[in-house]
Amino acid sequence: MNAWLNRFPLSVPESLRTPEEAARLELAHALPDCSVTLESVPAMGDGFCLFREKSGYRIAGGPAGLLYGAWRLIFSLTACEELPDRLESAPRYALRMINCWDNPDGTVERGYSGSSLFFRGGKLDYNPERIRVIARLMASVGLNVLCINNVNVHFPGQLLLEDDLPDLARLAEIIRPFGIRLMVSVDYSQPMRHGIPTADPLDTRVQAWWAETASRVWRAVPDLAGFLVKADSEGRPGPFTYGRNHAEGANMLAEAVRPFGGVIVWRCFVYNCRQDWRDTKTDRPKAAYDHYAPLDGQFASNVILQVKHGPFDFQVREPLSPLLLAMPKTHLALELQLAQEYTGHQIDLYTMMPMWQEIFEELPDSAIMSVAAVSNWGDDANYTGHPLAAANFFGYGLLCWDPHTDPRRSTELWARLTYGFPAEQEKKLADCLLSSRRTYEKYTAPLGIGWMVTPHDHYGPNPSGYEYDLWGTYHKASRDAVGIDRTEKGTGYLCQYPEEIRKKYEDPASCPDLYLLFYHRLPYSFRMKDGRTLVQRIYDDHFEGYAETEAMRETLRSLPFPEEDRAVILERMDRQVHNAREWCDIINTFFHRLSGIPDGQGRTIYE
Amino acid sequence: MNAWLNRFPLSVPESLRTPEEAARLELAHALPDCSVTLESVPAMGDGFCLFREKSGYRIAGGPAGLLYGAWRLIFSLTACEELPDRLESAPRYALRMINCWDNPDGTVERGYSGSSLFFRGGKLDYNPERIRVIARLMASVGLNVLCINNVNVHFPGQLLLEDDLPDLARLAEIIRPFGIRLMVSVDYSQPMRHGIPTADPLDTRVQAWWAETASRVWRAVPDLAGFLVKADSEGRPGPFTYGRNHAEGANMLAEAVRPFGGVIVWRCFVYNCRQDWRDTKTDRPKAAYDHYAPLDGQFASNVILQVKHGPFDFQVREPLSPLLLAMPKTHLALELQLAQEYTGHQIDLYTMMPMWQEIFEELPDSAIMSVAAVSNWGDDANYTGHPLAAANFFGYGLLCWDPHTDPRRSTELWARLTYGFPAEQEKKLADCLLSSRRTYEKYTAPLGIGWMVTPHDHYGPNPSGYEYDLWGTYHKASRDAVGIDRTEKGTGYLCQYPEEIRKKYEDPASCPDLYLLFYHRLPYSFRMKDGRTLVQRIYDDHFEGYAETEAMRETLRSLPFPEEDRAVILERMDRQVHNAREWCDIINTFFHRLSGIPDGQGRTIYE
Repeated sequence: MNAWLNRFPLSVPESLRTPEEAARLELAHALPDCSVTLESVPAMGDGFCLFREKSGYRIAGGPAGLLYGAWRLIFSLTACEELPDRLESAPRYALRMINCWDNPDGTVERGYSGSSLFFRGGKLDYNPERIRVIARLMASVGLNVLCINNVNVHFPGQLLLEDDLPDLARLAEIIRPFGIRLMVSVDYSQPMRHGIPTADPLDTRVQAWWAETASRVWRAVPDLAGFLVKADSEGRPGPFTYGRNHAEGANMLAEAVRPFGGVIVWRCFVYNCRQDWRDTKTDRPKAAYDHYAPLDGQFASNVILQVKHGPFDFQVREPLSPLLLAMPKTHLALELQLAQEYTGHQIDLYTMMPMWQEIFEELPDSAIMSVAAVSNWGDDANYTGHPLAAANFFGYGLLCWDPHTDPRRSTELWARLTYGFPAEQEKKLADCLLSSRRTYEKYTAPLGIGWMVTPHDHYGPNPSGYEYDLWGTYHKASRDAVGIDRTEKGTGYLCQYPEEIRKKYEDPASCPDLYLLFYHRLPYSFRMKDGRTLVQRIYDDHFEGYAETEAMRETLRSLPFPEEDRAVILERMDRQVHNAREWCDIINTFFHRLSGIPDGQGRTIYE
Repeated sequence: MNAWLNRFPLSVPESLRTPEEAARLELAHALPDCSVTLESVPAMGDGFCLFREKSGYRIAGGPAGLLYGAWRLIFSLTACEELPDRLESAPRYALRMINCWDNPDGTVERGYSGSSLFFRGGKLDYNPERIRVIARLMASVGLNVLCINNVNVHFPGQLLLEDDLPDLARLAEIIRPFGIRLMVSVDYSQPMRHGIPTADPLDTRVQAWWAETASRVWRAVPDLAGFLVKADSEGRPGPFTYGRNHAEGANMLAEAVRPFGGVIVWRCFVYNCRQDWRDTKTDRPKAAYDHYAPLDGQFASNVILQVKHGPFDFQVREPLSPLLLAMPKTHLALELQLAQEYTGHQIDLYTMMPMWQEIFEELPDSAIMSVAAVSNWGDDANYTGHPLAAANFFGYGLLCWDPHTDPRRSTELWARLTYGFPAEQEKKLADCLLSSRRTYEKYTAPLGIGWMVTPHDHYGPNPSGYEYDLWGTYHKASRDAVGIDRTEKGTGYLCQYPEEIRKKYEDPASCPDLYLLFYHRLPYSFRMKDGRTLVQRIYDDHFEGYAETEAMRETLRSLPFPEEDRAVILERMDRQVHNAREWCDIINTFFHRLSGIPDGQGRTIYE
């Protein structure tokens, strides 16, 4: 099983060394009858230029650019796309990263596709064949950095920089020919495992330890991309422990890795995760901006702040994180999540490209310089648990290359490469996928309210699951109203945005419907722009979401998937239908019990 | 540590064989200056007669009766209780049982006092000294049957009747001198481990297997009390699998154990644990009665149906199970739970004797012939996790002997034996314990509503935790009303009771307050007997419960506990105070959000 490369199975020789060799190999194998010449232009880096010539094609490009150009050609010819005489292309973002949340024991935090592809029993322990498949999958869509271990680094995760460094070097060798560099999540307190009584970034012993460690690590893995760090977050140690700010904390590491061309990717997921639900002053979405925006300009040039796309945590709908617009003097990476933590656990169908399109409607391309996504991989035969979840991985690669990639293009291209259905069926599948996120949203997340899930597990309807918990994620639904006022009159979250965005959301009368209850606290009788009441809109969305899920099942049943995929898809679809009914009925009942307002169309809402 | 026998530590010689020998040993040790003669009267069984004579005391009794009489004398003299010239006493109930929910892997289901005292690593593996301590504790309060393994028998629990039978026999030997007989929980489908393709009770191969097994087991443990069975419940196999009723199922086993004087204790905890929350016809409290009452008269004479005291599952307040009043032609055992599953996990103080007193106000003594309680033991140094939870174990023994034991008497006697405080402090401690259940109820369970806990874990406030779940335990609180109508006009549960009880509860105007929302669905504005509204009464109870908890902490802080107990008691009390505040605020907020009615006294209810 090779996901969308199923038509291009390939036994990669161990002698393969460079992306140019990989490009030749893929081309010879995928397009045996096509003459393609490769022209190495190192200065082009990851970019390429593809020329149609009399007798075939020519690709000019930098080391990895040749491989990306080769895949572009393979995809276009396989998908029967028309190619211009000259196609010049370069990725919009420098680091196009996958973050795996894999633990040394082989579990995957928020993994829904089986166990780790990399780890078992506390060690790197993998099937090299499968590693080569994922490297090819990454390269085929232009991704170039792979962080293999969980950002929550618990013992023995630290050993990757210690005893297990030779194993790390061997893994780097396997993926290097595909233009992919390793990255490693590190434990900020790691010096304390080595007789240093502190991890204070301003302590010279700490600085010396990291400098020595970086030197050792880059000697073993000369093209390591850098370190990924989750500090002072959800119980992880960090600079706050020593009264230092995050610029001081990150710059110390940056100094250590600078001689080797490494970067420090510093996650900005910091908030008070012991919030008292009684406290209405603290508003968790404000936390990242409050912590980081004042530090703009203070980070070293090889630090990249990695910012989640929304201010909460990968809900089905969140506004753009204001932090992404607030640090013009800092390198930023956008963090997305392919793993469907809050979006159906790869049981429910949930295609993310429409959501990403919305992000780039408000985020200027140039506000960020890199993109990262939490992986949806595991050791399931199909890699992504749900075969159709592979479309997200594919689409993510194209998005990193060009953030304005049309969701329909990436979805149809993936479908065509993967299944090669006739046009009408391909369109049915793409329609299904492209509508799946809105469908999921309709039955799970009323007008911008998320978090109606079972705590920790993050699946299944639980309207008050997080309501009295420590996590700062409340809707405060009462008999009269629901939502949080995040305008200037409320928590002030909206004030973290530039004027233009503030204006778009601050008035409930003009605020886009789907963000309404994220920004405003409103009575159930509030009139929506189309004249319906707020609560009627909630009921309608939930009934529609359930009905659309049933229709989606019919569509998928009608499509000629290969048998091994078909069985998995339909089994998951049955669970999604069951689940959608639970969501629909429970959330409608929840609001009906509170509001007492019956459904305007007389449909059944249970007691 | 010997709980209430701390003043009577004793190294029991391995040569000890009979309860009469144990009686002599305990007397010589606890009352060395007191002359006591023992007179064996086998016909008196567990009963005894204690005579005050010129130069000392004389005890006449059956084999175990002598030991019980000895303890009665030791307790009375130690506690400075007056003894009449002649005290005749016999236990009200034949089997006075402890059910341990201990698993072979050493975990204890719903255990809050550490790991198992009996099992480790899949095997019986224990400290014989500690087993002798618990045997002495049991004997000192008159308990005589010990079931050591969880009613949910998962592999390798079945091995107790197979390879591990010799180990079981050795354990029986250790407790035998204390008048205690073992019981074993069995897996109804166990024949299927031995090449028999069914566990159908009417299949002759199944019958033969159980007969042969019983013969083998009683050969190894001749005084085994019997088998405990949880069948067709919460996923366990049982006769329903084969279209047989529970009389057929239990009688088959009864036949097998009859030749050896064994009994079958058959738990009546059967209900639909996959209920749909939308289904308002099914009412879980009706299940036990519906399943078993029609079978009255059909059970063999050596079958005992073990019935939980309430119709749900050990909530802080439940009415008496109607099944206990509905089977006059069947042997019944009352099942209680010392383990504080829903009552504070042995973190919160919760003394059960007042609750048991309520049970016997409605339950005629003669409706049952035995009593069982789920153990609150574990391998913690103090056995019960919370040192004060030992009072429940002590009180349980006295209750089994005489169900009309005054809660204050058993509590004060336990306190005096355990701590020997001066009278005023003893009273303070007893007051604290005796009020603790009502205090816990006030902040956790509004007027008969239970289940406001986190699913599975069963601790901590979660007002809607079970509201949309599969377990049939709903309060259906809406903006207007709360509770379930279980009268004739509602689910009809109340109709399962005799006329007299029906009348007591059927009218909300006269229904005792604390059962109000168990039986009735009422608006928040409903007037209580004292003129308060329903919702005001809920607020008041919660504020009072929290305030009482804080006061309880002050009281316990003032008492001169030995240091090792004091540290544990105060640490748990701090957690209880924290927890009580969460319960109080969350439940008040929950009802305030629903009802919109402010607190009449203007206290803070959070948004």
